[in-house]
Parts: sequence; structure tokens; C-alpha cells
Amino acid sequence: MRTRFQQGLDDLREKLLRMGGLAEQAVDRARQAYIDRDLNRCHMVLEGETLINQSEREIDEAAFDLLAMQQPMAVDLRFILAVTKINSDLERVGDQAVNIAERVMDMVDLPEVDLPIDIARMGAAVSAMVRRALEAFIEGKAELAQAVLEMDNVVDRMKDDAFIQLVKTMNQHPEVVRQSLDALLIARNLERVADHATNIAEDVIFWVQGADVRHNITEEHADPGHQAPTSASGS
Amino acid sequence: MRTRFQQGLDDLREKLLRMGGLAEQAVDRARQAYIDRDLNRCHMVLEGETLINQSEREIDEAAFDLLAMQQPMAVDLRFILAVTKINSDLERVGDQAVNIAERVMDMVDLPEVDLPIDIARMGAAVSAMVRRALEAFIEGKAELAQAVLEMDNVVDRMKDDAFIQLVKTMNQHPEVVRQSLDALLIARNLERVADHATNIAEDVIFWVQGADVRHNITEEHADPGHQAPTSASGS
Repeated sequence: MRTRFQQGLDDLREKLLRMGGLAEQAVDRARQAYIDRDLNRCHMVLEGETLINQSEREIDEAAFDLLAMQQPMAVDLRFILAVTKINSDLERVGDQAVNIAERVMDMVDLPEVDLPIDIARMGAAVSAMVRRALEAFIEGKAELAQAVLEMDNVVDRMKDDAFIQLVKTMNQHPEVVRQSLDALLIARNLERVADHATNIAEDVIFWVQGADVRHNITEEHADPGHQAPTSASGS
Repeated sequence: MRTRFQQGLDDLREKLLRMGGLAEQAVDRARQAYIDRDLNRCHMVLEGETLINQSEREIDEAAFDLLAMQQPMAVDLRFILAVTKINSDLERVGDQAVNIAERVMDMVDLPEVDLPIDIARMGAAVSAMVRRALEAFIEGKAELAQAVLEMDNVVDRMKDDAFIQLVKTMNQHPEVVRQSLDALLIARNLERVADHATNIAEDVIFWVQGADVRHNITEEHADPGHQAPTSASGS
């Protein structure tokens, strides 16, 4: 009985990793679509959303079944709850990729202009955050998750800088207002992906440390090393 | 034992409703701050965030304790999972209110201009969605939740219209680019609040119907009247 439960936890973990791969791929495709002004890739992102949504449902149902199956131990319970939260965030990462793809589809009809924003670089930073957050989940390591939280500040700064520069551009060159706005909104979407990566990292820490580090209460409550994850981290 | 568990469910429900009240209040304050260009209200929103974050933690811990306490029945399990998801959405509603307040703080230093966007009306529609979603939760009624999903389309249209009009304004009057952009981003924040209200409504339906209506699969899977909530809806 316990073994079947353990197997269930491993399956849940695998499912979430596949879901993470899909979400990451969606962001990468959307970013590349922006760089190449590539409608084809935009459509791939839009079509990929169905699969992401379907995965979200399957993971929620699997988590539900595990909770219903037997009384999980505290650490397994935390793991399952973390999975359901990470699951929601990954689905929303997919939504942001769709938003970006839609914005790129709006852009490709407009004249191409050189804008004071490096979407490629910002997108790469954000993708790295998602990847790292998932690695932290795979490894069950709070330190890796902590690094993601720090990367978020960098992305925020990139977005703020872009904002200031793009407003200037719009003021001085009203003829490129729409392109500037598209770029600005894509930057906002990327910032939101970074926020979701941050949420995922926090959920990993919640699971690993059995403490809630959200909202900067790390110092008060976290107890590193305490109650390390025993389930699902090794199979 | 069962009674203590039942009491725990009622407490969880009460806590979530209080949290909902805080989130709703934050959005209303942020909207009013925009209308009156009222820095005082902006600060109230910013300060209120601490309380919202604290509530989120308490609710998550209470849900965790209930799950750990004993083997919940399927409907109670769905209820507790719905609460944790609604909890996340309410916290993010609070975040959006903070974003709006920060944008208002940016605006008040700029000359006041008349813009082709009715933030007051859009804000009222969005607040109504949050309120209705919470009512659906209190009553445990899928029909009420369904109504919220339909309201979301209206808000989306309002935002799209505003977008088109504001881009035109920015093109023709570069001197008001920054105010237009602030208004546009506030409209996006309100749209996101509407998205969270939609998520909450979907979670209520998930709980009430025991079926997953997310991602428009209502027709396929939903079974109205099936497995009506017995826990926590009456105390």
C-alpha cells in the first residue's frame, strides 16, 4: 500500500516535470517568435496551450487521488500541496507565453523599428529562472530555489529600465507608439513569468524546509535543513 | 473527532471570507485612489498588503493542518484544495491592487488629462466579479460562479477597447503618453483581477460539482447537481 503511494508520488513528480518542460518551451518559442518575427512559432505557442491546460488538469486530479488514497505523512502532504501550487504557476507561465505570441502577431504587420529594449536578453533571464526553479524542485534544494528569488530582482530592474526608455521613445517618436507598447507589454509578460518562477521557488522552499518563506519571513521562520524531503526526491 | 474536523472546515471558510474581504477592499481603494488621485488611499493599499500576505499564510497552514489531521472525505478534500487555490488568487488580487496604487502614485505628479478610458466603470465591473465569486463560494452555488465567467468577457472587451483608444491618443498627443500608459497598465491590472475572479469561480465549480470546468470543458465533464457540497456550506 505504502509502495503504491510512493509510486504515485513519483508519477506526480514526473508529470509536473513534463508540464514544466512544456511551459519552458512555450516561453522560449514566444521569445524566439519575437526575435524572428515568426508567425509560425506564434501558432505553435497557441496550439501548445491546449496540452498545457490538459496537463494541469491531470496533475490536479493525480494530486487529488493521492490525497484521497491514504493519510499522507506531513512531508508528503507538503510535497503534494507544493505540486498543486507549482502546477497552477506553470499553467500561468503558459498563458503568458500565449500573451506574448499574440502581441508578436500584432507586431509583425507594423514596420520594424529599433527599440531601446533587449527582449531577447530579458527572455533568456526569465527562462533561466523557470529552469532553475524546476531544477530546485527536482533536486529538492532550497539553496537553488533561493537563487531564483535573487534573479527576480534583476528581471524587475530590466523591466523598469525598459519602461523608462520606452516611454521616452513614445514621447519623441509618436509614430512608433504601437511597436513600443507591444514591446513594453511583452516585457511585462516576461516579468510575470519571472514572478511565477519566484512563486515556484517559494513553493519548493516551503516543501523542502517545511517553513513558509513567502513574503520575506525567511529570517523569522525558516529552519534550513529541518525536515528534508524524503519522498519523491529519490525514486 | 469528526466534529473537530467539521469545526476546522468552518474556521477555514471564515478565514477565507475575511481574506476575500481584504482583497476586495484593496481593489476598491485602489480604484477610488485613481478616481480621486488620492495618495492617502494608495498608502492604505500598500499597508494592507502585509495583512493580506499574513492571511494567506494562515489559511495555507490551516488547510495543511486539516489535511494532516485525518482522512478527509472526497468532498471535503475538494473543498480544502479549492480553498488553497482561491487563497492564492486572493493574494494576487491584493498584488494587483498594489500595482494600481503604485501606478496612481506615478500619475499624481503629472498634469491631469481626460483620457478615453473609464477606469471607474471597469473597476466597478471587476470588483463585482470578485464579490460574486466569493458569494458563489459562500453559497456553494455553481450557477453564481458561472455568471462570473460570463462577466469576464465583458471586462476583456472593455480592456481591448481602451487599448485601441489609448494607442490612438498616444499617437496623436505624445505629450500625454505617460498618463495614457499609466491608465492602460491600470486597465491591464484590473483585467488581471478579473482573471483571478474567474479562477476563483472555476475553483468553486470544481468544489461544488466535483468536476473540472477549467479550460472550457464544461460541456464534456460537468454534471450539475452531482455531489453537492455538504461540508462547510452549512455550519
